[in-house]
Amino acid sequence: MKNKQVSEPTLRRLPGYLFFLRKIMDQGIVNISAPVIGRNLNCDATQVVKDLSVTGIKGRPRIGYDTYELIHDLEEFLGFNRTNEAFLIGAGNLGTALMAYQEHQSLGLKIVAAFDVDSNKIGKNIGGIYVLDYNRLFHLTGRLDVKIGILTTPNHVAQDVAEDLVNCGIKAIWNFTSATLEIPDNVIVQNTSMSSYAAVLLRRLSDSGQ
Amino acid sequence: MKNKQVSEPTLRRLPGYLFFLRKIMDQGIVNISAPVIGRNLNCDATQVVKDLSVTGIKGRPRIGYDTYELIHDLEEFLGFNRTNEAFLIGAGNLGTALMAYQEHQSLGLKIVAAFDVDSNKIGKNIGGIYVLDYNRLFHLTGRLDVKIGILTTPNHVAQDVAEDLVNCGIKAIWNFTSATLEIPDNVIVQNTSMSSYAAVLLRRLSDSGQ
Repeated sequence: MKNKQVSEPTLRRLPGYLFFLRKIMDQGIVNISAPVIGRNLNCDATQVVKDLSVTGIKGRPRIGYDTYELIHDLEEFLGFNRTNEAFLIGAGNLGTALMAYQEHQSLGLKIVAAFDVDSNKIGKNIGGIYVLDYNRLFHLTGRLDVKIGILTTPNHVAQDVAEDLVNCGIKAIWNFTSATLEIPDNVIVQNTSMSSYAAVLLRRLSDSGQ
Repeated sequence: MKNKQVSEPTLRRLPGYLFFLRKIMDQGIVNISAPVIGRNLNCDATQVVKDLSVTGIKGRPRIGYDTYELIHDLEEFLGFNRTNEAFLIGAGNLGTALMAYQEHQSLGLKIVAAFDVDSNKIGKNIGGIYVLDYNRLFHLTGRLDVKIGILTTPNHVAQDVAEDLVNCGIKAIWNFTSATLEIPDNVIVQNTSMSSYAAVLLRRLSDSGQ
């Protein structure tokens, strides 16, 4: 059974709710109302109710939401309580940084192997993850049934690698490069280009005349 | 003289143009037309012309844009040819990863110091950047005239640290936490929460039934 597709802005906000709810759960708060959540997360109560409706859980009058139930259902909805295995392609600076950044696991994402073409990098172990020869990607994706590829290659090879990933059976690409990927519509692409965010930040700062 | 504010989608695309232009420049291509740029970056020529108009440069009929001139003006517009000094707050996993990730420099961003409250981290040098006692932030921001703060603290202290940054005179915050920051409107906030992107990716993958 498939849920109705939830909007990207709502999806982006959901981890914020989850982290807030985990925090208050630790403080022993077992029920919380939408207006209180909203005040803490700096958005209005109507938005909170709408966002949290994706879980199917409703707050009760004068009591609010059950904190534990809400955490459980948000984790379930976001897939953060499962282990989603991923391959990382490109063990350069950003790739290495992401391998060392273990918080992915709390997002339900586990990098099981990294791939590179550079013989100086192949065989290294970074944060418990081995860098393998890029040519082994084709063989291993099928065998391990990995669905997610994290793309941290140089920009100019990103398109070629993305096509390889699709041919290997990868169903979702987290694209950290600045390349615009042209791949089949049934493959999910999430763009997170550091340079794009830097561009917005620096230009806004410049615009503000500060 | 201030430029008209450019939309966020355009700003986000500009680094992509810049990287593509640098690549073809290396290949000796000194002129390029909007349709060719569009074909390479997977967007239509009208969008290319509109996006690149922020530089004030116009393509000439049958010749196109001057590659070098376009690169220069894009770098100038984005501030990538300047050194924008930044402080990083929170030398945990993500903070450390960002410190080790030297590509920031090609974005015109230079982390000059990191700050933490953990005495085990204070004094360490990561990627050439020292981790300093958080209490020194107040003194150093004013003295060094740093305008940008990179926020990589745990979520539950993000708001407090953001307020400290504002009080120190920081004018732009690159927020890598999942916290929604409530700070004065004249301070620029760029949100780049890894968990938000992971949420979108994992949910879309789940929606697709793959």
